[in-house]
Amino acid sequence: MPLRQSVARLLDRRSTRNFITGVILFNAVVLGFETSDTAMAAAGRLIVLLDVLCLSIFVVEIALKIYARGLSFFRSGWNVFDFTIVAVALVPVTQGLSVLRALRILRLLRIISVAPTLRRVVEGFISALPGMASVFLLMALIFYIAAVMATKLFGDAFPQWFASIPSSAYSLFQIMTLESWSMGIVRPVMEVYPYAWAFFVPFILVTTFAVVNLVVGLIVNSMQDAHAQESNAATEDYRDEVLRRLEAIERRLPDGRVHREGPDDR
Amino acid sequence: MPLRQSVARLLDRRSTRNFITGVILFNAVVLGFETSDTAMAAAGRLIVLLDVLCLSIFVVEIALKIYARGLSFFRSGWNVFDFTIVAVALVPVTQGLSVLRALRILRLLRIISVAPTLRRVVEGFISALPGMASVFLLMALIFYIAAVMATKLFGDAFPQWFASIPSSAYSLFQIMTLESWSMGIVRPVMEVYPYAWAFFVPFILVTTFAVVNLVVGLIVNSMQDAHAQESNAATEDYRDEVLRRLEAIERRLPDGRVHREGPDDR
Amino acid sequence: MPLRQSVARLLDRRSTRNFITGVILFNAVVLGFETSDTAMAAAGRLIVLLDVLCLSIFVVEIALKIYARGLSFFRSGWNVFDFTIVAVALVPVTQGLSVLRALRILRLLRIISVAPTLRRVVEGFISALPGMASVFLLMALIFYIAAVMATKLFGDAFPQWFASIPSSAYSLFQIMTLESWSMGIVRPVMEVYPYAWAFFVPFILVTTFAVVNLVVGLIVNSMQDAHAQESNAATEDYRDEVLRRLEAIERRLPDGRVHREGPDDR
Amino acid sequence: MPLRQSVARLLDRRSTRNFITGVILFNAVVLGFETSDTAMAAAGRLIVLLDVLCLSIFVVEIALKIYARGLSFFRSGWNVFDFTIVAVALVPVTQGLSVLRALRILRLLRIISVAPTLRRVVEGFISALPGMASVFLLMALIFYIAAVMATKLFGDAFPQWFASIPSSAYSLFQIMTLESWSMGIVRPVMEVYPYAWAFFVPFILVTTFAVVNLVVGLIVNSMQDAHAQESNAATEDYRDEVLRRLEAIERRLPDGRVHREGPDDR
Repeated sequence: MPLRQSVARLLDRRSTRNFITGVILFNAVVLGFETSDTAMAAAGRLIVLLDVLCLSIFVVEIALKIYARGLSFFRSGWNVFDFTIVAVALVPVTQGLSVLRALRILRLLRIISVAPTLRRVVEGFISALPGMASVFLLMALIFYIAAVMATKLFGDAFPQWFASIPSSAYSLFQIMTLESWSMGIVRPVMEVYPYAWAFFVPFILVTTFAVVNLVVGLIVNSMQDAHAQESNAATEDYRDEVLRRLEAIERRLPDGRVHREGPDDR
Repeated sequence: MPLRQSVARLLDRRSTRNFITGVILFNAVVLGFETSDTAMAAAGRLIVLLDVLCLSIFVVEIALKIYARGLSFFRSGWNVFDFTIVAVALVPVTQGLSVLRALRILRLLRIISVAPTLRRVVEGFISALPGMASVFLLMALIFYIAAVMATKLFGDAFPQWFASIPSSAYSLFQIMTLESWSMGIVRPVMEVYPYAWAFFVPFILVTTFAVVNLVVGLIVNSMQDAHAQESNAATEDYRDEVLRRLEAIERRLPDGRVHREGPDDR
Repeated sequence: MPLRQSVARLLDRRSTRNFITGVILFNAVVLGFETSDTAMAAAGRLIVLLDVLCLSIFVVEIALKIYARGLSFFRSGWNVFDFTIVAVALVPVTQGLSVLRALRILRLLRIISVAPTLRRVVEGFISALPGMASVFLLMALIFYIAAVMATKLFGDAFPQWFASIPSSAYSLFQIMTLESWSMGIVRPVMEVYPYAWAFFVPFILVTTFAVVNLVVGLIVNSMQDAHAQESNAATEDYRDEVLRRLEAIERRLPDGRVHREGPDDR
Repeated sequence: MPLRQSVARLLDRRSTRNFITGVILFNAVVLGFETSDTAMAAAGRLIVLLDVLCLSIFVVEIALKIYARGLSFFRSGWNVFDFTIVAVALVPVTQGLSVLRALRILRLLRIISVAPTLRRVVEGFISALPGMASVFLLMALIFYIAAVMATKLFGDAFPQWFASIPSSAYSLFQIMTLESWSMGIVRPVMEVYPYAWAFFVPFILVTTFAVVNLVVGLIVNSMQDAHAQESNAATEDYRDEVLRRLEAIERRLPDGRVHREGPDDR
């Protein structure tokens, strides 16, 4: 298919990529102006028009990509990411829900899939996640248990913080971040339940310890990766060289190869 | 004892383990529903019944385990953990204290002893504790000293924070977590005792430094563990190989073994 | 040019450097006294006079340096730094804007360019920045996107925090530092928009994770630098020595150099 | 001097050390009871008496130590530490200032000099300080500059926070710990000076970055120490062995020692 191939070649060109990057950045500025009431009053129509124009360019680009690569387009995670962002951006144009309209700025995230440096950083972030999965699971467990306990113990007296499991979980997340945990929440609770500290202080200690362990795990992992990359090449070359030479020396010794497995040597 | 053995084999089966895991998760959901007033109003009886059913399954499981393994059951820390959790859960059913009832959700922690991944994470956490024991002891010392001093110095003027050693220790813990330490506590105290910062700022610096040292110790420890596991196998194999070959070469040299400890060589 | 050279030699002398260091520290004390109303009331004229005197010394020193080294003076970043600080300090003398007057204390920063220890610390800080550039870029992206979204979603109901993109960015920076994020901002917002946590909690998680990754990157980098400096010298010397000796042994073996690339050996 | 020696031997005995440890812990409990009004009302005389008794034991112990070791007693930092603590404790008995009375609990710190584990932890902490000296110096510089600027810029409008250099430094320390920095201080300041964020946000970024660098330095240092201790022994033994054997092989080769510096080989 020569047309498909020439479309693919067009999309891979450096100038096309730069053009798309430019459109993304321009669109980010346009969406920024949309938040300003004075800008909207002065040139609201133009701003909306420019936004629609940018979106159209994205739609055309993605459509061409799908045409060029077929269903294999969806095999790359970054392509699915681009597709979803543009698809999300298409919804509010027809519907008008303010939340969906706010999501349109997520289009700026496309810059990550376009710029290789940012892409590598994000891939680095994501590759760190699986190693943290079991600690995350444990944290979820702790949060669920603590939320159920907090709701049962303090829910009746402090419905503003511990009315239900979700609201308790939010309050416990706030406590884990140490934001106003004592003055804002635990001291008032302790005026009704004087032993409330026996619930909250261990919760803080356990969750902080888990978070610290997550960070320690991250550090050890990246250190090992860095160490492995750096040292192995030089060290292994050297070791192979030493062993190769020792073997050569042994083979060339006056008594030759015979002694090697000889019974008198071992 | 063929019955004991067949019970032990039944308990070790994969399907039994999956069943127990399922019961734990189901029980967690049931105990979650217990916190909702609407759910309790609609199906309170059913929820309580399901909870009793789950608990009965746990009791039977633990009883069978003790029967199968005898007193050696209590040699494993995780078994004692399971036993305690189920035992604690048995108390509130008969007594009804709200705190003990809230503790029943701790049964969900059994999922840790059942899932090997979580078990390893928790064992990793616990194995890090002994190395931190002396810093913990030092922290306890600092807290006791600071609590006695704070009680003596500020107890009369600020009984809401420093009335007694325990309440001072709680306030100092809050200050160590940096929560509202200045706006909430130290600035008001400084209005009465202008030099109070000379107590609190060093306290913050010392405890923060101790905590940082704890984290640094954790990082260094896990790094060493990781490093030792990774490098030793390959390196030691290589070194043994080099030394073995060098020895072989020496033995096969024209002047043979005699020269080895010969006085003319050294 | 003998005069230029003798000026350069004069500026390089240890005693000249110590004198300049002394003037910088003295000037810092003088500028400190300027903040005290009682000191200004008692000896305001003297303080201003001493400040002018210090500044004159700096101007003469820089002028001499430029005379001695010509335009190559501006090739060193630290010289440009010194020049800018003194130049900034010259402006408020004529103009009198209170902000520019406050900037005069920045002259104390000259102590960094004079003291080699501090210089090295600051150079270490600056050398760490380029490696963090892509994460910074990503953070800027996240902040811009989050600020546009926050302005669109919460700007109308909470103009005190999210009126415009800059004020939203400031509020989000506050939230990233976890200062009063829940009690001060998110809980009030949640009273109007109950699902606001779905915006703020992920924002906190993502930015915290990015900051942690920055710190991890810093640690891994300095560890590699330290490791490379420490181990390479000894290890490489040892490796070169081993390979050199093995080669020497091979060359001196009875069957000589011939066997080296011989077909019967390989 | 046989008496001196027997006194020294008595002080070095395990039982004497345990006795002193016991007295320190007992004294800590006594001083703890002193903070309780009810305990003082019930048995105030006894508590004071027991405290005086403990103090007397310490005075006798220190006096004996000085007698046994002479002036060389003061060469050990830990002895000076013990001496100072007991000396400080002696002052309030005669004078009665409440601050000095509160300092008596510092006697509990003697447990550090008695227990080898705690001693090592504290020595580890102190040994980390010199490496951090230049960053501390830089922090002091930043704080002085920022305090002078804050006093000049915001001192008139916000005397409660920025009246003088010391009070500004305290407020900046609070801001560095991120406690209520925005809601408590910067937002109110921004209502008068809308560009105040341009002073405070960079201050937070710079000081946080400096603190992070301190922690990174600590981690790298302890990692290097740990690494050096662990690997060197085994590695150096191995390397010495390899080089020794290679040399032995070379010496025993058929063409002997002559070829070693021979011109035809190099």
